[in-house]
Amino acid sequence: MGMSQTKEESLYIGIDGGGSKCRATIYTSDYRILGTGVAGRANPLHGLAQTFQSIEESTQLALADAGLAASDSKRLIAGLGLAGVNVPRLYQDIANWQHPFASMYLTTDLHTACIGAHQGEEGAVIITGTGSCGYARVAEQELFLGGHGFALGDKGSGAWLGLKAGECALLDLDGFGEKTQLSQRLFDYFGVNNALGIVENLAGQSSSTYAKLARVVFESASEKDSVALDIVTEGAGYISELARKLFAINPPRFSMIGGLAEPLSPWLDEDVLAKTSPILQPPEWGAAFFAKQQHAKA
Amino acid sequence: MGMSQTKEESLYIGIDGGGSKCRATIYTSDYRILGTGVAGRANPLHGLAQTFQSIEESTQLALADAGLAASDSKRLIAGLGLAGVNVPRLYQDIANWQHPFASMYLTTDLHTACIGAHQGEEGAVIITGTGSCGYARVAEQELFLGGHGFALGDKGSGAWLGLKAGECALLDLDGFGEKTQLSQRLFDYFGVNNALGIVENLAGQSSSTYAKLARVVFESASEKDSVALDIVTEGAGYISELARKLFAINPPRFSMIGGLAEPLSPWLDEDVLAKTSPILQPPEWGAAFFAKQQHAKA
Repeated sequence: MGMSQTKEESLYIGIDGGGSKCRATIYTSDYRILGTGVAGRANPLHGLAQTFQSIEESTQLALADAGLAASDSKRLIAGLGLAGVNVPRLYQDIANWQHPFASMYLTTDLHTACIGAHQGEEGAVIITGTGSCGYARVAEQELFLGGHGFALGDKGSGAWLGLKAGECALLDLDGFGEKTQLSQRLFDYFGVNNALGIVENLAGQSSSTYAKLARVVFESASEKDSVALDIVTEGAGYISELARKLFAINPPRFSMIGGLAEPLSPWLDEDVLAKTSPILQPPEWGAAFFAKQQHAKA
Repeated sequence: MGMSQTKEESLYIGIDGGGSKCRATIYTSDYRILGTGVAGRANPLHGLAQTFQSIEESTQLALADAGLAASDSKRLIAGLGLAGVNVPRLYQDIANWQHPFASMYLTTDLHTACIGAHQGEEGAVIITGTGSCGYARVAEQELFLGGHGFALGDKGSGAWLGLKAGECALLDLDGFGEKTQLSQRLFDYFGVNNALGIVENLAGQSSSTYAKLARVVFESASEKDSVALDIVTEGAGYISELARKLFAINPPRFSMIGGLAEPLSPWLDEDVLAKTSPILQPPEWGAAFFAKQQHAKA
């Protein structure tokens, strides 16, 4: 019950890899936080070397924050939530890594986010930030929906809203379709005064550049701009439908996660909102819980 | 009137730069073809060094084809049609090039395509291939419409049709929206049997990869698949509207250019089809005509 660490005590590290950041938190076996670390992106779909480097960096930062030595990584039982590891080949590539931990347990970032949101219980989550996707895990059933990436899928996500805003503004400026205040708002946002200026700022840019325009769409929608209203209504309609598809396997609990969860919520259907519960723990907690659970089985 | 070349005779080279190929044709002053050459891509928006290299390569191939020496490039009065040179900065970058020609005259690929289509007369064109855009030139008026690039614009283009096909198939496979035979057709096309297989073949791919799917959409539309019909109808509707906007400045002649011109034509509105005339000359001819015209003024 004392606060001091003994050599015998098992320590857990929960690591949440993502497209922009990698977050690591070291926990005691009763989920007390000892230290945290944040490093660069760790999405195996965008490169394994970078992923491994960000995991090691965030781990070292968390160890230092906990007052532990770099070599103490060997004491850590690690849980990793990473995008794309539902693809067997990618799972194997990461499982084969000569990792610095005592043991390593690997699952998708959606799974660890879901475990965290419901504090270890089963349930469903929708993640809407730069991208969008749905996940549910009930008994032995696991459901992945959407999340096919920008610009092919991820409807209702920040990047999707931003792309629609760009498309609609350029159509408007060319004299097609409805007039929209999105055109002027994009001029202001980029500090330009014509269509070419918008194109120069968006052409070939990554999903995160587009996702930054989501706020502009919500602002225009709240001022009843009908083009922006159509975009937000279509995106939110998809997210509501995504939630209902997750509900089909009867998850005991449901949460919305990510930067767009809050701005989207006023636009979701009532039946979805009524079933939405707050997030209880972050994905790193979910990753640590997963590691502890798997380690107990091993 | 003889067939032999004398040192005194002026020779013209018309060069059409594009996103996948660079085509060069050497003409006599009465537009007799002496030789042609084709090299790799020459789109300054995707890189100046590559553009200059493709121009030089296609020129050398055309010279060799004409039985001329490499050093005879110094005899050529060159006309270049290149994407993006309506942007002053890009125009200047290319005008500053230490080119291998006697003189060089530069304009947009849309302008040279339009000159070619109407054999030197004024008019309007819509180019629909991997991308889509409209162009008209009448008196001193010049109109550029659309063509904002994949995935932001280029509605009705091959890449746009392909992206829509991918989006709709993935929505269908996730259980959203209408069932569509596009899903099975994309499985067949890529030799896969699930949504992830489609995503792996399309995520992060260039516009030309998407454009190859256009045929699949037309085939499904011709078999009355309602999702494919909606895609083709929306794309063709945009192209018809684009044509009408060009007609607003009263071009004496109008042509459709590019790989999608023919498959799209059954879907265009009657008033647009009625005003569509055949292409008279290729863009390289237009570029040579432009060079000769500018050179006479200089």
